[in-house]
Amino acid sequence: MMTVTSNVDDAVEQARSAASARPEAPAVRAGWLRAIADRLDDSSEELVPLAGEESGLGAVRLRGEVARTTAQLRLFASALEEGSYLEVTIDHPDPGATPPIPDLRRMLVPLGPVAVYGASNFPFAFSVAGGDTASALAAGCPVIVKAHPGHPGTSRAVAAHVLGALEAAGAPRGMFSLVEGFEDGIALIDHPDVTAAAFTGSTRGGRALADRAAARPRPIPFFGELGSTNPVVVTSAADHARGAALAEGLAQSFLLGAGQFCTKPGIVLVPEGSQLESSIMDATPRDRQTMLTPQIAEAYLDGFERVRKVPGVETLLTPGAPGEPGLLAVAAEDFAQRGEELDGEIFGPVTLLVRYRDEAELRAALEVMEGSLTGTLHCEPGEDVEQVLDLLRARCGRILFEGWPTGVAVSWAQHHGGPWPSTTSQHTSVGVSALRRFLRPIAYQSAPSALLPPELREDNPCRVPRRVDGRMELPEGPTDGA
Amino acid sequence: MMTVTSNVDDAVEQARSAASARPEAPAVRAGWLRAIADRLDDSSEELVPLAGEESGLGAVRLRGEVARTTAQLRLFASALEEGSYLEVTIDHPDPGATPPIPDLRRMLVPLGPVAVYGASNFPFAFSVAGGDTASALAAGCPVIVKAHPGHPGTSRAVAAHVLGALEAAGAPRGMFSLVEGFEDGIALIDHPDVTAAAFTGSTRGGRALADRAAARPRPIPFFGELGSTNPVVVTSAADHARGAALAEGLAQSFLLGAGQFCTKPGIVLVPEGSQLESSIMDATPRDRQTMLTPQIAEAYLDGFERVRKVPGVETLLTPGAPGEPGLLAVAAEDFAQRGEELDGEIFGPVTLLVRYRDEAELRAALEVMEGSLTGTLHCEPGEDVEQVLDLLRARCGRILFEGWPTGVAVSWAQHHGGPWPSTTSQHTSVGVSALRRFLRPIAYQSAPSALLPPELREDNPCRVPRRVDGRMELPEGPTDGA
Repeated sequence: MMTVTSNVDDAVEQARSAASARPEAPAVRAGWLRAIADRLDDSSEELVPLAGEESGLGAVRLRGEVARTTAQLRLFASALEEGSYLEVTIDHPDPGATPPIPDLRRMLVPLGPVAVYGASNFPFAFSVAGGDTASALAAGCPVIVKAHPGHPGTSRAVAAHVLGALEAAGAPRGMFSLVEGFEDGIALIDHPDVTAAAFTGSTRGGRALADRAAARPRPIPFFGELGSTNPVVVTSAADHARGAALAEGLAQSFLLGAGQFCTKPGIVLVPEGSQLESSIMDATPRDRQTMLTPQIAEAYLDGFERVRKVPGVETLLTPGAPGEPGLLAVAAEDFAQRGEELDGEIFGPVTLLVRYRDEAELRAALEVMEGSLTGTLHCEPGEDVEQVLDLLRARCGRILFEGWPTGVAVSWAQHHGGPWPSTTSQHTSVGVSALRRFLRPIAYQSAPSALLPPELREDNPCRVPRRVDGRMELPEGPTDGA
Repeated sequence: MMTVTSNVDDAVEQARSAASARPEAPAVRAGWLRAIADRLDDSSEELVPLAGEESGLGAVRLRGEVARTTAQLRLFASALEEGSYLEVTIDHPDPGATPPIPDLRRMLVPLGPVAVYGASNFPFAFSVAGGDTASALAAGCPVIVKAHPGHPGTSRAVAAHVLGALEAAGAPRGMFSLVEGFEDGIALIDHPDVTAAAFTGSTRGGRALADRAAARPRPIPFFGELGSTNPVVVTSAADHARGAALAEGLAQSFLLGAGQFCTKPGIVLVPEGSQLESSIMDATPRDRQTMLTPQIAEAYLDGFERVRKVPGVETLLTPGAPGEPGLLAVAAEDFAQRGEELDGEIFGPVTLLVRYRDEAELRAALEVMEGSLTGTLHCEPGEDVEQVLDLLRARCGRILFEGWPTGVAVSWAQHHGGPWPSTTSQHTSVGVSALRRFLRPIAYQSAPSALLPPELREDNPCRVPRRVDGRMELPEGPTDGA
């Protein structure tokens, strides 16, 4: 029987050789992604208990996560068939232009072997066969996954299915491998033949890898999704209209998955004396949830203690043990003074209420915040929220006006990224445009038709949407990639 | 009279305040770019002699460069009006999706203040009002240019026109500034409110800035265009058919602008005993050209000496003084062994012929080469060049099949970038998609229409091309951005 885990040098060597072949047609790669999705769906009942045992997450959540993972693979397959992601652009010669334009044809091509660092908190959707792997394979890049140590058995089981599905679908050996262990994770980011890396995890771990990626003799792009506080702003009018309901929604959101979501609302800006605050203690169930790993459990209590001790911070609810909820509060004035100590992610079921007395205090608190994946604004129709919205826009990747940031749809318009430290790049890690991370442009100048990739040929045999002489052209017939 | 040069702190503070306002509509920014272009065109006769004196470049070339610069500004203006660059993407709610999709609307927004490091070799097109500045302003980002010390007077004169044009066009103060000097260049890359940097220059200088950008407490993207050898492959058949003509073309290309082009063909792979080589000495004029700066002149001779001394290298023509042409040759076998010493840019009028005896030697030589902006293949119809093409594709951003790599069209399909060290990112610095460097996505979830930017509203008041529920939609009427 084949070993699921590889050593780094073998994995990268095989990936390099898979990458150096001409990339398979997008429709062929779409077949690979669907083959993986089918096999994971078929194996859900085997995988879910394994992941449950290793992560402490419940079966309903994990079953949903498998479905999310396979839907994601299939969405990328659709995007490959639709073809816009190639950004095909053709300029016909224009000798009269300044400077003259020759025949130029541009498209995107895969970067090469990609290192993916699995996350702890989604053993399926952000791990071995998660969004980073799906988007890199979709882009045509071989993937070497570094398994997260929090769920090694799940990682190996998923990897075996991915390998089996790719082999059965005829993908070249080396399109996918799994490596394990801290040392191999370091060796992977340093390996000269790795061309990009994707990571979801802590700011500290991500920064260490990002620094190594940048310090290589040949630096590579590092697509990290790190820490995020996901600020929520509740206006006085919204609090007045529905403060108690907002407290219910908040409690559900910050406790979801024991608060171990990158989009957990970690900071909630409320008017002083808010209904939300009066209701939040009653709205917060005191259940103890299992946390992902002992290290994460410990870091949760440490983080809580660190913030609790900052002058001005009031403890509303202390977790008696890991996985129990915590609630903290502070005046906006103090938050604005002590942003460096207070504006950081605590991974776990805790949120910090920041009480503001007027909009100036609210704005001053927002101004000290670093980048986040999301920002949520609960307001009422007709309120003047433009200045607050400007502050959220400047530091967040997704702005919500209803509901709560946990729950990240996988779609064409999704953006799951934001200014540092929430992500290390201008790209998303969820949604169709996540593909763009693993592609680079190439332009052909005055190429004979026979030497052009089919996507760039004049008669558009691949029927891709393209821009010709500055004008977008859609192929006739169905172009629906949804 | 207003001082043209600012200090870094003032410049960034003003840029930050210009950036924190809601970005002006794309059509308004298009007006700014055209205003700058008009003013530079009107000032060509003032600017060209100044640049000539500082750079040693001729008036015809410099007049053409002003025209290139202003055409570039106008092309970005067209792209703003066309609107595709915003990547507007709308998903309507789909509660049945896995996971459910809310109303999501994505577009790109400006990053914030951008630092631009002017290049030495194009005092207009890659300097103060060059492609980096044009694309950052087009994206909606305020720009702080660090002037190249090789042409300080030209830099100040161009800056004064840019400032004047922006002021007359009603742009906010702070959209553009000029700073000078090595220390200010360092202070700029380190400044906490700078959100991205663009650079064209040497691998050493670019690497130093890239390292600082990555080491900041809050790292920023660094879009550097560094060194490139721009390999040219001539097949036996092509050499047989037109070796003498190819020698003429090569000589013109590697001598253009005293070889001070980022796309200068620095390595030419020819069959042993080629007609090209027999003709190149006669085809190479011995004129001494003025080099851009004394430092560049000195580095040219140093680089020539360094490579000349590598074992196996044969000197065909020694430059007696800076700006005189040099020609070197080496066997492909030796090149493949000594790639680290031989595969690097020598900025100046020199090229290295690499003589191969068979395709295996040719491929082995290509395999040791690092990334380049361009790769050129001169072959004959019907030849099997796929393997050579694969090697060029893997390491080059633009592949040419006719002509020579010097001369970079400014158009929709252009790609001026390539694997490390030719660029530090997956983006181009020339052509419309250079815009993407200075933009980041933002997604609005369940936003009331009144709070959406007009580009994302359901009725498409800005008439932008957009993707709705996975399907591309073009506004009716003219959509020509060319």
